[in-house]
Amino acid sequence: MAITPSKSRTLPAPLAHRLVIRIDLASGARIGPGKVALLEEIARSGSISAAGRSLRMSYRRAWELVEDLNAHLGTPVVATAAGGAGGGGARLTEAGHAVVNAYRALSEAAETAAAGHLAELERLVPAVPPAA
Amino acid sequence: MAITPSKSRTLPAPLAHRLVIRIDLASGARIGPGKVALLEEIARSGSISAAGRSLRMSYRRAWELVEDLNAHLGTPVVATAAGGAGGGGARLTEAGHAVVNAYRALSEAAETAAAGHLAELERLVPAVPPAA
Repeated sequence: MAITPSKSRTLPAPLAHRLVIRIDLASGARIGPGKVALLEEIARSGSISAAGRSLRMSYRRAWELVEDLNAHLGTPVVATAAGGAGGGGARLTEAGHAVVNAYRALSEAAETAAAGHLAELERLVPAVPPAA
Repeated sequence: MAITPSKSRTLPAPLAHRLVIRIDLASGARIGPGKVALLEEIARSGSISAAGRSLRMSYRRAWELVEDLNAHLGTPVVATAAGGAGGGGARLTEAGHAVVNAYRALSEAAETAAAGHLAELERLVPAVPPAA
């Protein structure tokens, strides 16, 4: 996702380099920053539709991502209460929490380990393209 | 990219979980496994078209990826010799080699650091979906 500086700032903060980590599980599941952010937002808001809105994602897209994880992990990551789609609220299952926690721990470990190399790349490449 | 087991094997090796690491530089450049494999293949084969073929990528697509890196890094990663597009051969510049080396070193460090957490995820999720 592109970061758009707020128009009210006269001096936009310099963009930081960042690592984007995706885990491709042998089951076919792909776990990356988008799906993990969605799960975290579902946990926070208790609703798939609210989570989708807050991530500027259609309800249909949010559901597709959840269903994709459920199918490939072989166990649901989100449980929906009676009331059905969008009506009765949603929460993460134990598996859902486990996936979020494992992804966050893994990302943190990888980012810490990679920090020196990222700084090296930052020296090789100017933060702002010469003729921007 | 999906891994397709060879048809000549009766017992396909179990697919491994893996990390996919992309680096989003502040300049807008995105460096991931596809572009790095392309640069490595250009270094090996001395040709953008041969590198594209070996990665099952159209010549046009291979050029687009190289041009995208050149533009966002503010310095060329590939130098082409006289003879023009596809004619005179190609090699990595110093910047191209530096990007490949930094990416590989970063990925290795990140994978080593993440190994324990990946094993944890592997325990949470069966390697093969229940009703495959």
